[in-house]
Amino acid sequence: MNDVSQFDEGLGKNAANHVPLSPLSFIRRAAAVYPHRTALIYGDTRYTWQQTYARCCQLASLLQDFGVSRGDTVAVMLPNVPAMYEAHFGVPMTGAVLNAINIRLDAATVAFILDHSRARFLLVDPEYADVVEMALARMNGAAPVIINVPDASQGAQTLIGNHEYETLLAGQPETLDWRLPADEWDAIALGYTSGTTGNPKGVVTHHRGAYLNAVSNVLSWTLPASVTYLWTLPMFHCNGWCFPWTLAAIGGTSVCLRRVDPELILELIPQHQVSHYCGAPIVHAMIADAARAAGTTFDRPVAGLIAGAAPPATVLERMEKIGVALTHVYGLTETYGPATVCAKQDDWAQRPLDEQVRLNGRQGVTYPLEEDVAVLDPATMEPVPADGQTMGEVMFRGNIVMKGYLRNPAATKEAFAGGWFHSGDLAVMEPDGYIKIRDRLKDVIISGGENISSLEVEEVILRHPDVALAAVVAMEDAKWGEVPAAFVQLRPDAELNEAQLIAFCRDNISRFKVPKKVIFGPLPTTSTGKIQKFLLRQQLGTGTSPG
Amino acid sequence: MNDVSQFDEGLGKNAANHVPLSPLSFIRRAAAVYPHRTALIYGDTRYTWQQTYARCCQLASLLQDFGVSRGDTVAVMLPNVPAMYEAHFGVPMTGAVLNAINIRLDAATVAFILDHSRARFLLVDPEYADVVEMALARMNGAAPVIINVPDASQGAQTLIGNHEYETLLAGQPETLDWRLPADEWDAIALGYTSGTTGNPKGVVTHHRGAYLNAVSNVLSWTLPASVTYLWTLPMFHCNGWCFPWTLAAIGGTSVCLRRVDPELILELIPQHQVSHYCGAPIVHAMIADAARAAGTTFDRPVAGLIAGAAPPATVLERMEKIGVALTHVYGLTETYGPATVCAKQDDWAQRPLDEQVRLNGRQGVTYPLEEDVAVLDPATMEPVPADGQTMGEVMFRGNIVMKGYLRNPAATKEAFAGGWFHSGDLAVMEPDGYIKIRDRLKDVIISGGENISSLEVEEVILRHPDVALAAVVAMEDAKWGEVPAAFVQLRPDAELNEAQLIAFCRDNISRFKVPKKVIFGPLPTTSTGKIQKFLLRQQLGTGTSPG
Repeated sequence: MNDVSQFDEGLGKNAANHVPLSPLSFIRRAAAVYPHRTALIYGDTRYTWQQTYARCCQLASLLQDFGVSRGDTVAVMLPNVPAMYEAHFGVPMTGAVLNAINIRLDAATVAFILDHSRARFLLVDPEYADVVEMALARMNGAAPVIINVPDASQGAQTLIGNHEYETLLAGQPETLDWRLPADEWDAIALGYTSGTTGNPKGVVTHHRGAYLNAVSNVLSWTLPASVTYLWTLPMFHCNGWCFPWTLAAIGGTSVCLRRVDPELILELIPQHQVSHYCGAPIVHAMIADAARAAGTTFDRPVAGLIAGAAPPATVLERMEKIGVALTHVYGLTETYGPATVCAKQDDWAQRPLDEQVRLNGRQGVTYPLEEDVAVLDPATMEPVPADGQTMGEVMFRGNIVMKGYLRNPAATKEAFAGGWFHSGDLAVMEPDGYIKIRDRLKDVIISGGENISSLEVEEVILRHPDVALAAVVAMEDAKWGEVPAAFVQLRPDAELNEAQLIAFCRDNISRFKVPKKVIFGPLPTTSTGKIQKFLLRQQLGTGTSPG
Repeated sequence: MNDVSQFDEGLGKNAANHVPLSPLSFIRRAAAVYPHRTALIYGDTRYTWQQTYARCCQLASLLQDFGVSRGDTVAVMLPNVPAMYEAHFGVPMTGAVLNAINIRLDAATVAFILDHSRARFLLVDPEYADVVEMALARMNGAAPVIINVPDASQGAQTLIGNHEYETLLAGQPETLDWRLPADEWDAIALGYTSGTTGNPKGVVTHHRGAYLNAVSNVLSWTLPASVTYLWTLPMFHCNGWCFPWTLAAIGGTSVCLRRVDPELILELIPQHQVSHYCGAPIVHAMIADAARAAGTTFDRPVAGLIAGAAPPATVLERMEKIGVALTHVYGLTETYGPATVCAKQDDWAQRPLDEQVRLNGRQGVTYPLEEDVAVLDPATMEPVPADGQTMGEVMFRGNIVMKGYLRNPAATKEAFAGGWFHSGDLAVMEPDGYIKIRDRLKDVIISGGENISSLEVEEVILRHPDVALAAVVAMEDAKWGEVPAAFVQLRPDAELNEAQLIAFCRDNISRFKVPKKVIFGPLPTTSTGKIQKFLLRQQLGTGTSPG
């Protein structure tokens, strides 16, 4: 290998041929190319791309007036309102880092996050004023400056302090000579993982990765410039899987949505000709149920991304009937949202429905601009055989993997051990190269030395027609070490007892995997629709508390 | 501004979170995700993505056997056959740089290029054996090793030496542990500009830019994974505008095409359900004429990119009639092909045709992932007013701009003066932010101190119904310094004399812009359909010779 070749000498980077990759470039282009196209819709409010860009410049300008600059943290606790979208551009325009906080968190966790992120500002919707005030009281460090973002559609609201978003914005010029970051490796966002044990970890992402995953969304989903995207996915969740930046990259239209209200969604989709939306299975299930109740079908094709768990057969089937095509993606906060996609092969559409459900239920293949996903044995870092049987850990490698965890070198080192990012999810590799997740590493039940996938047991229980939701966790057992215990939520009016369900499981799964105990009742879920297994473990007396 | 923030410390690059951007990642993914989908079609030959990837690995492996490594040059002189596509991956897999040579060049120019690029290998189609043998005889430096790529569809062919592509490939393993470049700034390709004066310049491009423009094509044209792309555009021309890499990024299908044969194209489009193709106006005009003669219209929508000159009204109109939607793009070898696109605004389709022609005739706005295009006064580097009148030079800035010219520091410095890449094209900025090219800098006619845009005069002449092609160049004049002279090719059976055409111009353009002389006859064009004005200047006795 030649160290320096004729293609290196005198051919370095300069201002004309090298610019840091940053999604901020997308909004500048959207405003220049599509100034009069609608960027944001919220209720009766509409902003064009020119107006949205101006408002982002105003936000950056007001933060700069407050002294915000590179490396500062600006936190937001907002639903999917225009200010939340604007923060995805206005904050990084100043060089600061956007910390979007889950709006469902309790005061103690919010206090921990504000302390840990060293947030200098917090944009907050008055709906969360009580939680924020409690959090501020519990903080150890300096409290952030609060900027209230009241929502006129919510009637009279209590504000914290006297800074108000629209008033501050109105005092700022609509143009700003902001700069791209000097280095595309600079942080753009900070997102705290929900961490079921210990304190949440702060995932730091950078401009380069945000740029690339924003574009990767376009490739993965063939997004046209004419897209109208409905914000059913919280923007606080992995920065809305990078979709705020994706929409700027193509000049698409965002329909903001304060909360996932199925009746409102059924109204907004035809009203604004919504073509795309994302969400956890629970979101899609709610839409499917509401559509069935109302007898709704959509005239124009609607595409949905589904993540968080494999799409159940009933959801896939019902969505197809009302005109929604679902694509299954998978990822983590550490991978900027989606990092695999269950890419549909040309012949799948002709297969029987149960086969389609099985195929689309897999987490799939590498997302277009992610570099690599693999299922490795974490002990040897060797790939598991593509036999659909051998479990290994899902690991990622590429430009769409976080910088690391904020001020947590031990966790960062562990996450990147061996040159791969360790997802903590256990999966098999199927013969066609598609991965199928079997469990969270920490959710595996080790019974008499055998690994039991809690997901596998859950999938069997969910096949029972009376079952609505199911979660299987480890229960301590004197003889076996651990045994599976099932928490089950029945469908309305269904009747099913423990013995019947256990008998059903015996007919469908190896004896050692059958739950030894079944507890019926409603299951606790997170804001993104995930079942909170740590609460179930606590109920069994074997769990640890979250941070 | 903080120099080192909490978001920098301990959060550096590692093997898990940073990978050089390279289009080579695309083919690895295409082979993994769509192994059985067709990648290449040529006559009766079909290769899947798995096979194409294997063949690229074989090519890389055989080059490595010959000792090729980072910084070496591998030249190709091939039409759009599968080997040409494979070279776009197999060559950079070794770390070498692909130098695709225009197949229409004369022996003297080919000799200059092979000497200047220091090519160690030349893959050549036997059709060009004579030119290559003459070129080898004229070279000053060491001759490259010749690998013949015979084409079975062309009957018996004469080979140079005894290396034959398929035989060499067959001797190589189908898997190879190739590596991405260590640095995404490493060169991937070298393309010589056609240079109308002096020696051709060698444009060096890098992996990062090739990756980004390949993706930019997807965004600009909303390319779905199911695309079938017809290779009407030569791959030697700016690496086929990065489309070999684009097709790998989405797993699309390429239909190879040895030469632009309109009858064959009309056959291939329905046969393979071709959805997309690119070309100079002449290519589209040939297809439109052939379709009209054969009474062909296409059942499925076909999309075409057009570049090299604004699409004439007749072409836009005829293409629409047969079911082809054209999009106008503009760029240079130095910008990896398209760097602007005439992005269609939502309301254009409702405008009258002549208005649509005017709107779509502009070079447009920044290509999605290019950073910036501007029309600047080269003296002050200030933007010209967006008045549609004031001329300035089109300049680019961003990641999709070449590294520079090979071993030509003076030209590189000049091209990047002031932190922008100088295109050499003169344009105006219209009030809506779209650029419209008026002329090549060197084609401007300076008459009595006034600038005359040769393109503007040509556009007027082309409005005459009897005119097929027109080119206007400067002619020396004792009184005015320069005056416009027109070279005109008439439509078949048309009759038009100099006085009539001059009278027509007087009715349509300022007196001082009217050509003082008109010469009728066929016009010389390059392989990409551009009129060779330097030959016309030579005919007038005022031109300089090309290198």
